[in-house]
Amino acid sequence: MPNVLLLPELREMLAVGDEPALQAVVNELHPATVADFSEGLDVDETWRLLAHAPIDRQAEVLTFYPPPKQVEMVDGAGREAMARLLEEMPHDDRVDLLKRLDDEVVESLLPLVTKADRADIRRLLSYPEDSVGAVMTTDYASLSADVTVGEAISQLRRQAPEKETIYYVYVVDEERRLIGFVSLRDLILAKPNARVADVMHRDVICARIDEDREAVARKLAEYDFLALPVVDDQHRLVGIVTFDDVADVLEAEVTEDFHLTAAVAPLARGYGQTNPWALYRRRVGWLVVLVFVNLVSSGVIAAYEETLQAAIALAFFLPLLIDSGGNTGSQAATLIVRALATGEIGVGQWLRVVVKELAVGTALGATMAAASFALGAFRGGVEVGLIVGISMLGIVVLTNLIGVLLPFVLTRLRFDPAVASSPLITTVADAAGLFLYFTIATWVIGLMGPLQPV
Amino acid sequence: MPNVLLLPELREMLAVGDEPALQAVVNELHPATVADFSEGLDVDETWRLLAHAPIDRQAEVLTFYPPPKQVEMVDGAGREAMARLLEEMPHDDRVDLLKRLDDEVVESLLPLVTKADRADIRRLLSYPEDSVGAVMTTDYASLSADVTVGEAISQLRRQAPEKETIYYVYVVDEERRLIGFVSLRDLILAKPNARVADVMHRDVICARIDEDREAVARKLAEYDFLALPVVDDQHRLVGIVTFDDVADVLEAEVTEDFHLTAAVAPLARGYGQTNPWALYRRRVGWLVVLVFVNLVSSGVIAAYEETLQAAIALAFFLPLLIDSGGNTGSQAATLIVRALATGEIGVGQWLRVVVKELAVGTALGATMAAASFALGAFRGGVEVGLIVGISMLGIVVLTNLIGVLLPFVLTRLRFDPAVASSPLITTVADAAGLFLYFTIATWVIGLMGPLQPV
Repeated sequence: MPNVLLLPELREMLAVGDEPALQAVVNELHPATVADFSEGLDVDETWRLLAHAPIDRQAEVLTFYPPPKQVEMVDGAGREAMARLLEEMPHDDRVDLLKRLDDEVVESLLPLVTKADRADIRRLLSYPEDSVGAVMTTDYASLSADVTVGEAISQLRRQAPEKETIYYVYVVDEERRLIGFVSLRDLILAKPNARVADVMHRDVICARIDEDREAVARKLAEYDFLALPVVDDQHRLVGIVTFDDVADVLEAEVTEDFHLTAAVAPLARGYGQTNPWALYRRRVGWLVVLVFVNLVSSGVIAAYEETLQAAIALAFFLPLLIDSGGNTGSQAATLIVRALATGEIGVGQWLRVVVKELAVGTALGATMAAASFALGAFRGGVEVGLIVGISMLGIVVLTNLIGVLLPFVLTRLRFDPAVASSPLITTVADAAGLFLYFTIATWVIGLMGPLQPV
Repeated sequence: MPNVLLLPELREMLAVGDEPALQAVVNELHPATVADFSEGLDVDETWRLLAHAPIDRQAEVLTFYPPPKQVEMVDGAGREAMARLLEEMPHDDRVDLLKRLDDEVVESLLPLVTKADRADIRRLLSYPEDSVGAVMTTDYASLSADVTVGEAISQLRRQAPEKETIYYVYVVDEERRLIGFVSLRDLILAKPNARVADVMHRDVICARIDEDREAVARKLAEYDFLALPVVDDQHRLVGIVTFDDVADVLEAEVTEDFHLTAAVAPLARGYGQTNPWALYRRRVGWLVVLVFVNLVSSGVIAAYEETLQAAIALAFFLPLLIDSGGNTGSQAATLIVRALATGEIGVGQWLRVVVKELAVGTALGATMAAASFALGAFRGGVEVGLIVGISMLGIVVLTNLIGVLLPFVLTRLRFDPAVASSPLITTVADAAGLFLYFTIATWVIGLMGPLQPV
């Protein structure tokens, strides 16, 4: 959401042409702050504001706008101006921007940027969306192993303005194969006449260009690195992934998990940018599939139709029992899905988890059974209380177990354990719950005789 | 999960006392890799392995073990050895470790560490768990404004071994008030005889010591900073939060959101470390509350008991209709909860979202109605088909709307929108769905006459 706090002041400055104030705003605040304050301006106003900064600063601010505003800004700028900006933007950010533009716009811009930038853009655009190639950047700092530390620092000083980071420097041989890495901290601490080969780390943790972006983001976070080098199949350095991409990638993956859990197919863009028709398509598939899964529950009801008609009071507790089963199962499934996603438990530990959850489920079932017995007895006497209470105990223990096991089974079958976990559990829990309820009702009625009319 | 790949080799090296190999493993691999490979060793073996590294390296490896292993390691080491390790650990990591130990153990260790470290530990331990104080570290690099760039780099060189990062350096006045910040990149690029005051940034984005840790982590990620300074109420620098804490904090918050969504109260520790009794307490509250919310559905059934008894074929479609409502509502609620959590939409946009979702809901409802009409007609003729189809259309449109509105209402009432969203929606959707179903059934039966027995 745009920050509207300073919009009136900014518009006033633009209206009266207060050059010193405009220059101060654009050049002295952090670029993210400039973007935050100016997001609410229209495209034309924003460009007039940015014109008060040098082009590299303009490019920096541009990367901090939300994607839809970036696209609008491109439409508003001349193609020539935009090409100059693209040359100044960090290599990963400009590709992210170009991916959101129409192909025709991209094709009309590319001939205007330098040949080297054009080749770089085309290469980065070619990697699949979920691979590390799609989030990495190519503006990394590199050195050869045979220079001295003093020379290395001078080289970094020259490279600094164009590089995403100079705090991690990668050491490559003549064929650009990755042979080591050295941090600026190591260089600062080393003797200036030492050779880079002697101070560099040779055990470099790196990512392969075709690796999954989530796996690489997790690796980066696990090792507390600022950046991770990315290599091709011949171990040649092709890019780096930096720490600031981790939060973005993990957030996108978490959103996907949340959506999967609720049986929504992953959205390509944010909710705000997805049109109703696309939303419909992401949701309808699972809803229709679940209708058919639900026919199992209907089958159980059909099988016990006479029992239900003879003891219609049982219908009163139907929603309560099947929902409690669904809720218990969702809780259990969510706990396990999340613990599996964070790597906190492994698939191999399923038996230990099941034993633990048998204890939890029994305790939950006993509490719920006591509450249901009271409700049932109050509504229809002790017999109904017993039917409802015993059913509740069985349903909670059973659905809890189903909720625990489903994510392990899905993982084993090579599905994402989050897939539709909540609705699928609810639906499976319903069928199981109904079956238990009618079985127990038939059994208790057999023992104690027909129910009293309520 | 421990990596068991190299366990046999490590045990063999320990058994035959292969000193060079053990030294190479502990000293030449990344500390995270050492921790990963040795996690499966028992406490005694792990200490024998670590003994082959200097104490600062031991401390580094220790921080990469999962928390339960860290606690076991402390129990296995002598108190004297542990006190030395604590002095070497990063200030935030050692406090995280101490928080997991019994109070008695902590109190027996503290007298053995130096006075300065002891005071630092006690201060960091005193901040509330959700505040930025609980994740920040106090081993930051700082300078005064009147030194030259050359002198600043020499000072950093001296400070480097003990600091969490030297890439961001904070500039403070005599009272330790934060007046600026400068990156090592700025220092490297500046002339050695320039003054820090002339190259530092004065517009410093910082966090207040009592701010929420999630808000600060998001700020750090938004600005792509390596670290954010933390100040007290007199703007004195008291610590820094670093980029590597962002992923941890956001992951913890996301887990909390997942659990809330499924009506599980947030766990204090990971699932694996939470005992059954604690799990029971986190889950039972909402389950029992939802039993009572469910009585509304029971009430609807009670009101239509005669209709149901007279047309028992309607029971067949009960689970299908109420589950479809719950599933649709969960999908909608999850989309909105997540979009609100990532800041992608704001509370003020509720009307636009409702209009959009009316379109989506109608399209979903029409599709589901067609499928249900076919099922109903197949099972009980056109009349049943019409009842089930029209009900499904109404239920899907209505529950979709409830799912969209509930997160906005919860936010407005100052609850977390994720609270119990899935089960709460399911339960509310049930009651609404049952009511619609019976109303429509009564209406259609009134128009077309009693249902044929199936």
